[in-house]
Amino acid sequence: MKASFFLDKVRKGKPLVHHLTNWVTIYDCANIVKVFGAAPVMAHATEEVTEMTSLSSALVLNIGTLTTDFIEAMKLAVKSANKKNIPVVLDVCGAGATAFRDKKVFELLEAGKIDVIKGNASEVARIAGLDVATKGVDSTDVNQDLTEIARQLAEKRNCVVVITGAVDIVADKQKVFKIKNGHAMMANVVGTGCMAASVIGTFAAISDDLAEGISAGLCCYEIAAECAAEKASGPGTFKEKLFDCIFTLNSDIVDERQKILAIFANS
Amino acid sequence: MKASFFLDKVRKGKPLVHHLTNWVTIYDCANIVKVFGAAPVMAHATEEVTEMTSLSSALVLNIGTLTTDFIEAMKLAVKSANKKNIPVVLDVCGAGATAFRDKKVFELLEAGKIDVIKGNASEVARIAGLDVATKGVDSTDVNQDLTEIARQLAEKRNCVVVITGAVDIVADKQKVFKIKNGHAMMANVVGTGCMAASVIGTFAAISDDLAEGISAGLCCYEIAAECAAEKASGPGTFKEKLFDCIFTLNSDIVDERQKILAIFANS
Amino acid sequence: MKASFFLDKVRKGKPLVHHLTNWVTIYDCANIVKVFGAAPVMAHATEEVTEMTSLSSALVLNIGTLTTDFIEAMKLAVKSANKKNIPVVLDVCGAGATAFRDKKVFELLEAGKIDVIKGNASEVARIAGLDVATKGVDSTDVNQDLTEIARQLAEKRNCVVVITGAVDIVADKQKVFKIKNGHAMMANVVGTGCMAASVIGTFAAISDDLAEGISAGLCCYEIAAECAAEKASGPGTFKEKLFDCIFTLNSDIVDERQKILAIFANS
Repeated sequence: MKASFFLDKVRKGKPLVHHLTNWVTIYDCANIVKVFGAAPVMAHATEEVTEMTSLSSALVLNIGTLTTDFIEAMKLAVKSANKKNIPVVLDVCGAGATAFRDKKVFELLEAGKIDVIKGNASEVARIAGLDVATKGVDSTDVNQDLTEIARQLAEKRNCVVVITGAVDIVADKQKVFKIKNGHAMMANVVGTGCMAASVIGTFAAISDDLAEGISAGLCCYEIAAECAAEKASGPGTFKEKLFDCIFTLNSDIVDERQKILAIFANS
Repeated sequence: MKASFFLDKVRKGKPLVHHLTNWVTIYDCANIVKVFGAAPVMAHATEEVTEMTSLSSALVLNIGTLTTDFIEAMKLAVKSANKKNIPVVLDVCGAGATAFRDKKVFELLEAGKIDVIKGNASEVARIAGLDVATKGVDSTDVNQDLTEIARQLAEKRNCVVVITGAVDIVADKQKVFKIKNGHAMMANVVGTGCMAASVIGTFAAISDDLAEGISAGLCCYEIAAECAAEKASGPGTFKEKLFDCIFTLNSDIVDERQKILAIFANS
Repeated sequence: MKASFFLDKVRKGKPLVHHLTNWVTIYDCANIVKVFGAAPVMAHATEEVTEMTSLSSALVLNIGTLTTDFIEAMKLAVKSANKKNIPVVLDVCGAGATAFRDKKVFELLEAGKIDVIKGNASEVARIAGLDVATKGVDSTDVNQDLTEIARQLAEKRNCVVVITGAVDIVADKQKVFKIKNGHAMMANVVGTGCMAASVIGTFAAISDDLAEGISAGLCCYEIAAECAAEKASGPGTFKEKLFDCIFTLNSDIVDERQKILAIFANS
């Protein structure tokens, strides 16, 4: 599988990606879609979400700064996405932090078909119903467990599960991809996690096999991060150069740097 | 007409520009006003918009992430602006995308005097009541038509109409300005359109002839974009350098680069 | 007192700083906490603020884009912070601009214990109940008066009062610190004032003596601004380099550049 193939498809297809996301990184989420050559749209009024989603090729939900009203708008958007049969990505941002947040995440998971659940190790563990301390789950020692957690949740929820981290895990019922690209600087700036969800939505929009397309998207994003880190003098300039490097990313760089490990269930 | 004259006036007058805008690019809208040497203020509580607008020298409205409540606050702000006789700029962001958006835009247009309607070709065509496919309107082939659309809408609504694009069109009932400055990179980054509305508001605040002042403002903004593009390595660094270049813009650069074509009705 | 000591404490303690802030600079507020090595969280739903604050080590409130509902959420957060005995910082952003804003600020001041009131000269003067013209208060001529205003308000409200400006004043009932670091470029970009409140919250979280820790935090922030200004070509690149310089700030630079004047009541 070549990530550059999917990058090309995004740039040619220019999918419209509808977001209902948090107010902290909303600009970054829109801009990352744009610099990948696709088209972001942000709209959350209950009176228009149904129609806006119906015009789009993917839906990205992020509960970072959730409110009850906002979650209701998300539910309408999910129904509309399901009707049009476009992929729905749910970033379970901050799951586990408060009882309200947990309650609302599960309401969303029951509101319709969620195609991709995305979070860091502790957030996804929470959704999987595990009673693991965050610290333990995040450590590399339980790396094997993370793959298993992702796989089981993918099976249980009949969806793709993405656990982001130093190594990203993308699992569906049949296979697991591990993306080993990226750079430590990503953890030093606000927004890289939220942007990952937008990248997932953008690549899901143009992919027949979601897990494959999503892995390609994360790989491209993180290769750009590697290039940006080489040119940056800290997290501020890193983020701007990340946008530059995505915009100027070409197949040669992606092919050369791609580090995706694919594991198939019956291999 | 010299755009640099208006730039100087903005820097000396430091007008306060009240915004009710979208949550995606709200920072950029505030910052562009600031780096031009003027003063932005963002406030949308219905309990204070009337008073905040009454303290300001221009009002900028952008419906990007509209809700019913937010539009109600905008209506109060329009009434306050009309009472104080300061210019009101309406960015019809996303007009035509959903029925709700169209309904709310027309409610705003009826809520009081809107002095400037601003959008891209398809958005303005929608407001003008035309049944043109977006693709067609955006193409350069119908450039002549765009001027006519702007002119007729300006006459119908008794306001200035701004259509942004590779060439910007600024029309009132008597005249049309075409601003040929700018750079293709502007289309690769989220926020350049929204910032244009803030620039329009800032220059409208200090101009006797709105169409003239607005044209000067867009010209300055786009000359800075030309300078920024020369120094940037992609859309991320471009936006930061755009702020730098506006801040350091001087009369010599503006006079040298200005490309404004003026067409008068009876010429 | 060495500011570098507190910087080290922030980086080791990585305090969680809960924000209820404005929608304009919310990203910058989160990111400044992050690049200092601490952890930001933004959450405002009334159903979860109490719990989110209870997980945090400091609470930062900023009324920039206030609404009635948002202020109610802030009140719940203040109560939760008081219960857990963590510092509450209130940025009285825009106090004095409208009657609504003034009313809501005073409601917040009565809602529980506010540990730090932060604003520019005219905002703090307003809170202090003074009838001073903004222009006069901001001038350096009344520098002495600003110290006195801060001191008296600190006594009256039994809190720390921070007045930001070319020289920052941090006063509690016993002492006053004057921080003379910083750079004029800070005034040319939107967000430096809001970020100062986030820095105050971050350093308050790890300090036994609030006025001392806050002064150290502002000193570190402004030394980074000095370094950033030396490398920037304008306000756009300045802000990105500010994040870089905070991230790479070390004790040597801080010790070398620190300009804090301490005045004790009985000295």
